[in-house]
Order: sequence, then structure tokens, then C-alpha cells
Amino acid sequence: MPKMKAAIFVEAGRIVLDEKPIPDIGPLDALVRLTTTTICGTDVHILKGEYPVERGLTIGHEPVGVIEKLGSAVTGFKEGQRVIAGAITPSFTSNACMCGCASQDGAGTKHGFKAMGGWRFGNTIDGAQAEYIRVPDATANLSPVPDELTDEQVLMCPDIMSTGFSGAENGAIKIGDTVVVFALGPIGLCAVAGAKLLGATTIIGVDTVPARLAVAKKLGCDHVVDFKAGDPVEQIMAITDGRGVDVAIEALGTQQTFESALRSLRPGGTLSSLGVYSTDLKIPLAAFSAGLGDNKIVTSLCPGGKERMRRLMSVVASGRIDLTPLVTHRFKLDDIEAAYDLFAHQRDGVLKVAITP
Amino acid sequence: MPKMKAAIFVEAGRIVLDEKPIPDIGPLDALVRLTTTTICGTDVHILKGEYPVERGLTIGHEPVGVIEKLGSAVTGFKEGQRVIAGAITPSFTSNACMCGCASQDGAGTKHGFKAMGGWRFGNTIDGAQAEYIRVPDATANLSPVPDELTDEQVLMCPDIMSTGFSGAENGAIKIGDTVVVFALGPIGLCAVAGAKLLGATTIIGVDTVPARLAVAKKLGCDHVVDFKAGDPVEQIMAITDGRGVDVAIEALGTQQTFESALRSLRPGGTLSSLGVYSTDLKIPLAAFSAGLGDNKIVTSLCPGGKERMRRLMSVVASGRIDLTPLVTHRFKLDDIEAAYDLFAHQRDGVLKVAITP
Amino acid sequence: MPKMKAAIFVEAGRIVLDEKPIPDIGPLDALVRLTTTTICGTDVHILKGEYPVERGLTIGHEPVGVIEKLGSAVTGFKEGQRVIAGAITPSFTSNACMCGCASQDGAGTKHGFKAMGGWRFGNTIDGAQAEYIRVPDATANLSPVPDELTDEQVLMCPDIMSTGFSGAENGAIKIGDTVVVFALGPIGLCAVAGAKLLGATTIIGVDTVPARLAVAKKLGCDHVVDFKAGDPVEQIMAITDGRGVDVAIEALGTQQTFESALRSLRPGGTLSSLGVYSTDLKIPLAAFSAGLGDNKIVTSLCPGGKERMRRLMSVVASGRIDLTPLVTHRFKLDDIEAAYDLFAHQRDGVLKVAITP
Amino acid sequence: MPKMKAAIFVEAGRIVLDEKPIPDIGPLDALVRLTTTTICGTDVHILKGEYPVERGLTIGHEPVGVIEKLGSAVTGFKEGQRVIAGAITPSFTSNACMCGCASQDGAGTKHGFKAMGGWRFGNTIDGAQAEYIRVPDATANLSPVPDELTDEQVLMCPDIMSTGFSGAENGAIKIGDTVVVFALGPIGLCAVAGAKLLGATTIIGVDTVPARLAVAKKLGCDHVVDFKAGDPVEQIMAITDGRGVDVAIEALGTQQTFESALRSLRPGGTLSSLGVYSTDLKIPLAAFSAGLGDNKIVTSLCPGGKERMRRLMSVVASGRIDLTPLVTHRFKLDDIEAAYDLFAHQRDGVLKVAITP
Repeated sequence: MPKMKAAIFVEAGRIVLDEKPIPDIGPLDALVRLTTTTICGTDVHILKGEYPVERGLTIGHEPVGVIEKLGSAVTGFKEGQRVIAGAITPSFTSNACMCGCASQDGAGTKHGFKAMGGWRFGNTIDGAQAEYIRVPDATANLSPVPDELTDEQVLMCPDIMSTGFSGAENGAIKIGDTVVVFALGPIGLCAVAGAKLLGATTIIGVDTVPARLAVAKKLGCDHVVDFKAGDPVEQIMAITDGRGVDVAIEALGTQQTFESALRSLRPGGTLSSLGVYSTDLKIPLAAFSAGLGDNKIVTSLCPGGKERMRRLMSVVASGRIDLTPLVTHRFKLDDIEAAYDLFAHQRDGVLKVAITP
Repeated sequence: MPKMKAAIFVEAGRIVLDEKPIPDIGPLDALVRLTTTTICGTDVHILKGEYPVERGLTIGHEPVGVIEKLGSAVTGFKEGQRVIAGAITPSFTSNACMCGCASQDGAGTKHGFKAMGGWRFGNTIDGAQAEYIRVPDATANLSPVPDELTDEQVLMCPDIMSTGFSGAENGAIKIGDTVVVFALGPIGLCAVAGAKLLGATTIIGVDTVPARLAVAKKLGCDHVVDFKAGDPVEQIMAITDGRGVDVAIEALGTQQTFESALRSLRPGGTLSSLGVYSTDLKIPLAAFSAGLGDNKIVTSLCPGGKERMRRLMSVVASGRIDLTPLVTHRFKLDDIEAAYDLFAHQRDGVLKVAITP
Repeated sequence: MPKMKAAIFVEAGRIVLDEKPIPDIGPLDALVRLTTTTICGTDVHILKGEYPVERGLTIGHEPVGVIEKLGSAVTGFKEGQRVIAGAITPSFTSNACMCGCASQDGAGTKHGFKAMGGWRFGNTIDGAQAEYIRVPDATANLSPVPDELTDEQVLMCPDIMSTGFSGAENGAIKIGDTVVVFALGPIGLCAVAGAKLLGATTIIGVDTVPARLAVAKKLGCDHVVDFKAGDPVEQIMAITDGRGVDVAIEALGTQQTFESALRSLRPGGTLSSLGVYSTDLKIPLAAFSAGLGDNKIVTSLCPGGKERMRRLMSVVASGRIDLTPLVTHRFKLDDIEAAYDLFAHQRDGVLKVAITP
Repeated sequence: MPKMKAAIFVEAGRIVLDEKPIPDIGPLDALVRLTTTTICGTDVHILKGEYPVERGLTIGHEPVGVIEKLGSAVTGFKEGQRVIAGAITPSFTSNACMCGCASQDGAGTKHGFKAMGGWRFGNTIDGAQAEYIRVPDATANLSPVPDELTDEQVLMCPDIMSTGFSGAENGAIKIGDTVVVFALGPIGLCAVAGAKLLGATTIIGVDTVPARLAVAKKLGCDHVVDFKAGDPVEQIMAITDGRGVDVAIEALGTQQTFESALRSLRPGGTLSSLGVYSTDLKIPLAAFSAGLGDNKIVTSLCPGGKERMRRLMSVVASGRIDLTPLVTHRFKLDDIEAAYDLFAHQRDGVLKVAITP
């Protein structure tokens, strides 16, 4: 049985490069030979043991590669095609998917609903930090990469762009909206880009790392707020002349940012939450207008599927947005442990790393 | 200056019937002679000092009456017409109103947004538990009562129906949805009716008072859950075969019901909150799927305006829903202190009282 | 190779019962043994040669039956289960499906879009007027029938209810809307039921057949208009006191009804079209306010998929609507030619026929 | 009674500069001294007698100016403030406005609905091509101009931007959409800008005037199609690789462009119509998929109101879009007849003219 290299979870604190068999595929699957992938903040949660996965699982959910083999029931693709797949790979054939929440797909469960059930790569099945990956429900999840785009240009599509944009989309941003984005990591930066793409005309970014604030301005922030320079909500109120924002996007996952986002809303405004939280959250009574403020709190898990990927790649191809500044470092798969070390410690101004097998 | 009787707030624990001058009106106002009104749960919060209003304010926000006098700039009405006005009386001409959140109108504020600013009757201006009421922005807020409907038939429109229905509407209920309503007071009962009106096919009501559970069944509940008979979330999961509900409506305003509503949702489901909370709220991490469950939390303040009122009265006139069981007791305005006593203590199976000057 | 009976198209004017092989199935398919089916108005178009299909095709797209055999890649079902499938059987895995128009699925086409491509039964593959049917993309399209419902109770779900309801849903009917439905055949009657289910409070039905007008009243019409008693638009304007309707549903497919629907709209109103047209259509300038009336014209092809079917069956199970009056006649499959004769000539007050193999 | 100059309609073919009294105002009105205005294509229709208005009416509906006097019931403004008002000035207090179609406001009519009733300037009341204008319902319709913007920078907001953007908004453009705009006059060019602002990634513009095609590229067109170089639908299909467009915006008002827009749609696509038609329209059966294509046809009249104007000015202020290339010529009010002559004959590459009293 032929072998391949893969980054696997061993125990809290240890993701190591090891050998595993190249995956077998069933009739609905595809085998993809990876050419580029990356590490996500969620992978660092896994590394730290904060999000539990099975020992021995291959980590990673952002695949760019070439179709090596197609399952007998897969249609619309051919071997040798360059493709990406979303981080979330729903079946699209469950009741959950047909209710409009494909990312919550639990295709094999009784009713088709399972929280985060659409997230399979590097979570419930082997992931993308390897030489090969099995893509489930491949007809629905493979998306051909246009020739004119490089691997690195589409590397943000499977997760970072899709998640960041969904924060803007699910916040229902309208032309002329004022939007704030809390935390300007890769997801937050894509939320800024998404907000701009949807017609927001005043975009405020909140962070404290100068490099991030600088990239945020390039991607669409009209104002940046350094939360170390004073209460960010007060700064936002000053920028908006006391009005508050139409939409606040939370892109970190802490009580602090969640609560500040809520406090920065105008009456009737929407908090669009993207962060992965690790504690219970508190909603302060006043920030919530005692429940009478016509506010909304919406949460999003990265949308997947081939049409989503097609559209995101079309954004890149159109030149509307240039996300190449996000890839700050490059590693060979053989050196992925060093990549994790850099990325987990957020050294050297790293935003995203590109990993090539 | 001619006088009238009015129920005024004196101090925590005391709302008394007193004499006040009949209100003057400006060019945008109307003076309405009240023929029927009622007491709301919010009025009881005011009585108890839990919601602060100014000493001497006339309480009440649910007016049915006859136009006595029209301001010089009011159009479309004539004196002597029988009308209602919504509990919330937005100007409809502020920026907030044009952003789709008329109830958060702050017409006189810098940017037009003020949390709950559309709620004026019995909050920031004199209310409806009196012989006369000044209706602001009357062109937008008066709504003629069809001849075939009695005062009592339209008495629920200004607040109870409008609020309860908005819980169903803002939950974006779809044909075939499964919905739970937590707490079956007048608002919750109207949320049940609203859910049915929007095509929900499995409606579950949660309360413990037998009379309320019985009315809930009449108004559309397919199942009722007594929360004293065991964890209501477990009961809901049993009824839904483990699936959870598409939409959970909270109609009380406590941590307990808020949290149970969240826990009863399917992944991707919506919590539609109507309650007036008096404490900070906690979102349990698991019930929130760490922020990745594609869940929504939406809050609503009673929608107002003459078209809203017209539509609610058309629901009554159509016979689609019969809310007359909600009016359980009747009082003269002269006896309003006794009415408060009964209503505040929820004695004698009271749901709503009708007050007639 | 085992044989079965099937109603096949031979040439314009001739659909006959013949013998065909029981279908083979592939990995994504299911073989269903039919227990009940029906004839649709569209089948009559095929019979008359107005809608072209291939010679020898089995007609019919409304299957109720029992799973005889499952393809190797189908999940979530077991043989022997009683099921229905929608008239439209999208793959749910094409780009078109992920763009929100599954009924326009062209799964095998270059971009996944093909007008009416989701309609396969009795159109591009063999249909349901037979002893057995091959259901494509079975994981997505089979839907188990609850034990408490009879075949006849769910017989309207695959097409008639799904189409009729979509006319109301895509018209975006809101609580308190005034709605007119033009033509009260089975689809129009279900549009009436759908409008009621969504909270319309004034529903007007237009037809001339007394039996249809009577059923329409049972299903939710507040007013019926006989178009032979005078211009229906004038009658509608009289009923609505000159206001016009919020939503007009066209359920026939002629210039006359299309144009009348448009003329009955209020400014800003929506024409929701369900009919199958056979000629170019004219939009009169005045009825269209020269393009400045904020009007919408929306068209719908029957939505399919297992979740849609589950929801429609839940409507039946809830008792919210009783569609049993629609099945007016019953035939054995052996007598299907007689059934076509009756149905095509609309004799004996026929609305829908039930066919049992 | 003090006099002013105004461009008035005399008869078909004649709009002349004349003297009229400076308008009186009522309690809800404002008097605005105009500093800049422009001529619209609709004004040319009026000039030619194609759209009927009363003899003696002042023409024009795009005012930029300074508040001279405020009615007694107007709030939130002060005299001397620089403002614009939308071309459409709804009351925002009628039933129509509260049904979400403010532009169809018929505030004084029985039910509040009147086709195009929100369009008053230069249609049913005196317009903006004058030294002074009476703005009705001024609280809702005046919008302060930020100091940093010049008159010319906000001159497109009252009509051209608001209309063009509404074509994109009502087409419900999503991130990654392919959009075509038929006819690249000022409205069409703003529709291009609006489509880009909403995240369309492939925008195709159709016209034949080289100067317009050039401006279209600056404003966001990825492709331009010269309809004289061959059937535009074929060219669009070639650009989209046979897929068709998600949204087609019609910005002229002819059968030719309407029909081509419809034919260029993918199944499930939307035709968003902005043109003012002067004949009945034909919907070709095939382009409409016999009514089964899940297509939509939506029409829009320019949205108005102070919040709309505020948001459009924020688009200009944000620098997201630069519409200054649209103002190609400048005239004094005294020379407005020459301006009409140039504009009506589309001489000298004119797009829009600025008129200053």
C-alpha cells in the first residue's frame, strides 16, 4: 500500500509529520494530490488541545491540488484537473443542506442536522496537510481553478475568504453602511474586504498590531482603531459621531471583542460573529437594550461547495481584491512543524503560511 | 383648562387615578378620546419601579378611541372617526425609520437612532390609561377601525398582537417549520398565533399554568410542555425526535427561558426574543456551538404605524384567529387601581383586562 | 428481463399502456415500486403534442411507492420504506442548485444551468405512470411517508402542493396581504391554500366553474370572482375598494390571465406566475406603469427534494389544510387511458385522479 | 410677491425660461434656494411631449441648494444649511410607504398607493430648474451635504445614482455574480457602479457610443459589448462561456433592450428594469422558458428620502466611486434652453450637464 507524508495530531502540543497510506476512495469521493495548503488558527486550537480530534488524524482543511483519481459516481471532472475544495464539504443532499445551512450538514445522522457537521477535513476525516487527500461528495465539492490563477492566489478561498466574507454577507451589509471589524487576523481582514465588496462606505478595523492595521487599510478600512489606545467602543462612537455602527463583525472569539461589538451597534444593528469561542458568553443588559433594541446576533460557519469556491475565485480573478499580502511565509511540507511553531506563536508578523508538498 | 382622569405613576408601587388637563395638540398631533384600553406587563414593570418613568406620567400604550381633534398638518382622517394607534408611534421620517427599524426611532436625536425611541406612550409622553390621549405624528400612526369590529376585538392590535407576531415574523418562520414558544402569557399566545399564521406545522408551547396551556392549544399549539413536568428542552427534543426546532420564541425575559430557547434550536436555527430582560444574559458555550452553529438571535420591539395596525385588524376581521379569549376581565377606568392589583398579581386566571373610561 | 406496465407516449393524441422492462439502477438511483400516482395538466399538454417528449417515454411525475432497491451509493433509506419523490428531482450538487435554483438544475451540463433541467420524470427520463420507477439522485430525492398518512393524502405533495405553494412563497406574501389567484384548477387551489398558510387575510379566487369556486372557499378564498360575470379586474378593484392586490398569482398560462393579474396589482405589487404558457406574452404599458411601478413578475418551477417533500407532508399531517377534496376520481393503472380521457376533457367535475397499479 | 426664474413647460417641444413667484411654503415644507441642478432624460421626454405634464409647470427633479426657510412643523434642520433632496419625495407616512414602496406613495389618495406617486418635483409640483424650490415633507426629504463635497459631487445623488444603484440592489446582486447592463447613459453607468459596489465580479456593458463604453470601463465594466458589432446576446453568451448572466439590468426602455436582457439571463436569473417604456412590451416565450425558468422581472422607481441621500453621499465621500466624469458640460440657468438643446440631441458626447442659477 503506497505511503505519503502527512501532518498528524498526536496529543496536545504535538502535531508531527508522519507516514500514512495514501487514502482509498469510494464512489462519491475524489483523490486529490495536494500542491499547496496552509495552516489555520483552528489548527492551532487543535494543536493546543483546545479543540479535540482523534489521535492520528491528518490536520488541515484548505486544499489546493490536482485530481489524481475520481470515484465511479463522480461527474463533471476529469483526472489531472487543478482544483480546490472548501474547508467545509457538505453533502448538499441532506435535509440540513436543503434547509439553507449546508455547513451544519450531518448527512449520516437521523435528521441531517449536526452542529458543524459539514466540517470534515482535519476534524472528522483526514485533512489537507499531506501529499494526498480524499475529498468526500466530490461532485459537489471540487472546484476547478482557472488557469490564470496561481495556487497561492486561490489558497485563501477554501476557508479564510469564505469565512470572512460570510461575516459581511450574513451581517446583511447594505450600500452606505458603517461597519466595524474586531480583530484583524486573516479572517478579520477578509471580513474587511467582504464589507467593502458589499458596499459599506465606512469601515473601521480594530486591532493593535501595526502590520495588521496597515494591511487592513489596504483591504478597505477607512479607519483603524488601536484598542490599546483607549476603549475601542468610545473610539468607534467618536468616528461615527455617536451614531454607532450598522454591522459589527467579531473575528476573534473572546468575551471582550464580542461585548465590544455589541456595544458599538446602533439600535437595530447586527453583530455578525465569526470567532470560535472557548467560554460562555455574557450579554450585558444595557448593550442589549434589555432585549428591545431590534438587534440581531448572527453566527456563521464557513460556507463550502463548488459554487462558493467558483465565486470566490472569480473575486480574485476580477482583481477587485488582492489578498496576496496575506501569505507572508512559505514552507515545504517537510518543514511543517517549523511552520506550526512560527504560526502558533505569531512570530515575524506572520499572517498566513503557504505549505507545498 | 378642562380636566380628565388619568392613571399616573407616583412612585414605585403606586399608580393612581388622578386628574390632569386634557392634552393640547400641535400641528402633527391628534387628540383621541379613549373608549377602551388595557394594562400591559410592561406597565407592571413600571408600577414595581423596575422600569423608570417620570413621576406624574400617564401610563398605558394601547389606545382605542375616537378622534376628538386633528392637528393642522394631519391628513387623511376626520374628527369622529374610530381609531387605534400602535403602542409604538414612530415618526417614520427619521433616518432610523428609513433604515428599517422604525421602533428604534429617535426622531429628535442627532442621527435619528435611539434604543426604544419609538416607544413614547406611557414612557416618554403621557399614555392611554386616561380619558384622552395626544397621538404624535398622527398621520402615520392613527388607523381607522372597521365598523364590523368591536373595541375589544382590536384591543390586542396596538401591542400584544404586533409584538407576538413580530416574534414569528422576525424568526423568519417558513412553511413546515417546527417552532417552540417559551411562556404563554398574552405575548407568547400571540406568538403562537403568528407562528401558525406563517405556516409552522409543529408548534410547541411551554408554560405551566393549565389555563394558558389550554388557550395555547386553541390558538395553534400542536403540543404543550409543562416545564414543571421535567426539563422542557428534553421534552422538546422528544417531541421533535431529537431534531430540535427551527425557531424558538422567547416571550418572558429570563435567563432560564432564554437559555432553554437556545438549547432547543437545531443547528442553523433562530432564537427570536420578545422578552424584556432585567439582568445580563449568559450564552452557554455548547448551546451556541462555540459560535459555529449558524444560529441567529434576533430581538424585536413591537412594530407600529397605521399600516401595521391595518393589517393586524384585517387578521381579526378575516376570522383567521380569534383572540377574544385573551380578554378575561373588564373594568371601568375609575376602578383601574383594582385592575392593576388583579393584573399585577396574576389572580383569577387573568390574561388581559379591558378598561373603559 | 422482467417486465412491467407503463403509460407511454406514442404520438400526439396517444398515450397508451404498454409493457417495458423494469428499470435498471445505477449507484445513485433507487428503484421504487409505485403504489399510487396521478395525471397532471402537463401530461395532457404532452398527450396533445403541445409539449414534446420522446416517443416511448413513460409519462408522469408524481410518484408514491415503496423502495424496491437502492443504489450502492444511496444513504439514509432502506428497502421496503414507503416514500414519495418530488416531480422535480434535482441533483443538488450542481452549480445551479447551489445558486438557489435547484429546479433549473442541469447537473450534466457545462455550467450546471438548464432551463427546467430539474424536471426529469416523464420529461427526459421515464416517469411514474408505471409499476416501477427509477428515482435519480435518490439520497436527495426520496422522502419517507409518515405512517399515519395514506397514499392519497400525500399524492398532491410531489407537484400540486409544491407548485401551488411556491406561487405564494415566491410572491413573498406577508401577514395581512390581499391576494388574488387566477384559475382554480388543482395548482390554483393549492396556491389559495398556500396564501392562507402564509397569512394573507383577503384571498380572492377567479374562475367560472362552480365546483372549483366552492372548493376554493373551503381552502381559504374569502371572495370568489366569476370571470364570466364581468371583467375580473373590475370585480377585484371593487372588492379591494380600489386599492388593488399585493400579490396576484397566475395559475393557468394564458395572455388573458397574465394580463389580468398584472392589471389587478397595486403599485409595488407582485405577479407570481405558475402557468405554463404556449405563446409570447404581452405586457400592457399602463398595467406596467411604463416600467416605473416597482412591480415584480416572478416565475416558479415546482421545488423538489426530500426536505421540501417532508415539509409538505408535515402540512398535511398537521391538519392545517385538507386537500382530499382534490382527488375526485380513482382508476387502476390498467384503465389509465380512460383516466386520461376523463381528465383531458375535464369531465364530471374532475380535479385530480388517483391511479393505483 | 418676489419673482424668480424657472424653466417651465409650455407645450410639446418648448421648455422656456420664465419668471414665476417664489413659492410659498406650508408647515411641512422647506424653501430651498438652488445652487446646482441638472437635466434628466425624463425631462427630455417631457420636452418632447412623450410624458404629459401641466402647462406652466417648472421642470427638473435634481436639486442641490441651501435652505432658505423652514415650515413650522419641520424638524432637524436649520436655515442656511446646504442640502439635497431626492428626485422622489415620499411622505413616508402613507400606507404605501409603510408597505415598502415609498416611491409609489400616494399620500393623499384613499389607500396611499399611486403609481409613481412619490415623484412630485417637475411632475405634479414645481421642480428644480429654477432659483427656488418648495420641498414637500421636508423633515423626511432634506439631506445635509457634507462640507467636504462640492455641489457637483452630489449632483448625481437625487436621481442618477439612486436609480442606477436600485437596479443593482433590486436585482439582488451577490458576490461573484455576472451582470450585464444594457445602455450606458448616466443611469446605466450608475448601474454599472452599483453592480460593482455590490460584489459582481463580471460586469458587461452594452452600448455603441465609444465615449460611453470608455467611461463604463472606468466605473467597473470588465467587458464592453458594442451592439452594432453583432447580436449582443451572442456576445454575452460568448463572454460567459454559454452560461448567461445572473442579473441583467435594462437602462433604456425599449423592446429591443428589454428582450435582449431577458434572453441573456441564465435559468433562475433576474431582469432588473430601470427604463421608462413608451410601448407595450413583448415577452418571447422561449426567453421566458414558457414561464418555468424561475426568472424574475423587477422594476424600480428611484428611491428617495434623506437616509437614501445620506448613504449615496457617503459613497461619494468614501471615494469608492468617482462619478465626476459624468458631468461633461456646465450652463447658467439663464442658458438652460441651450442646455436642453445640447442634451436632447445628445451632442458633443454629453452625459450630464450642471446648471447653476
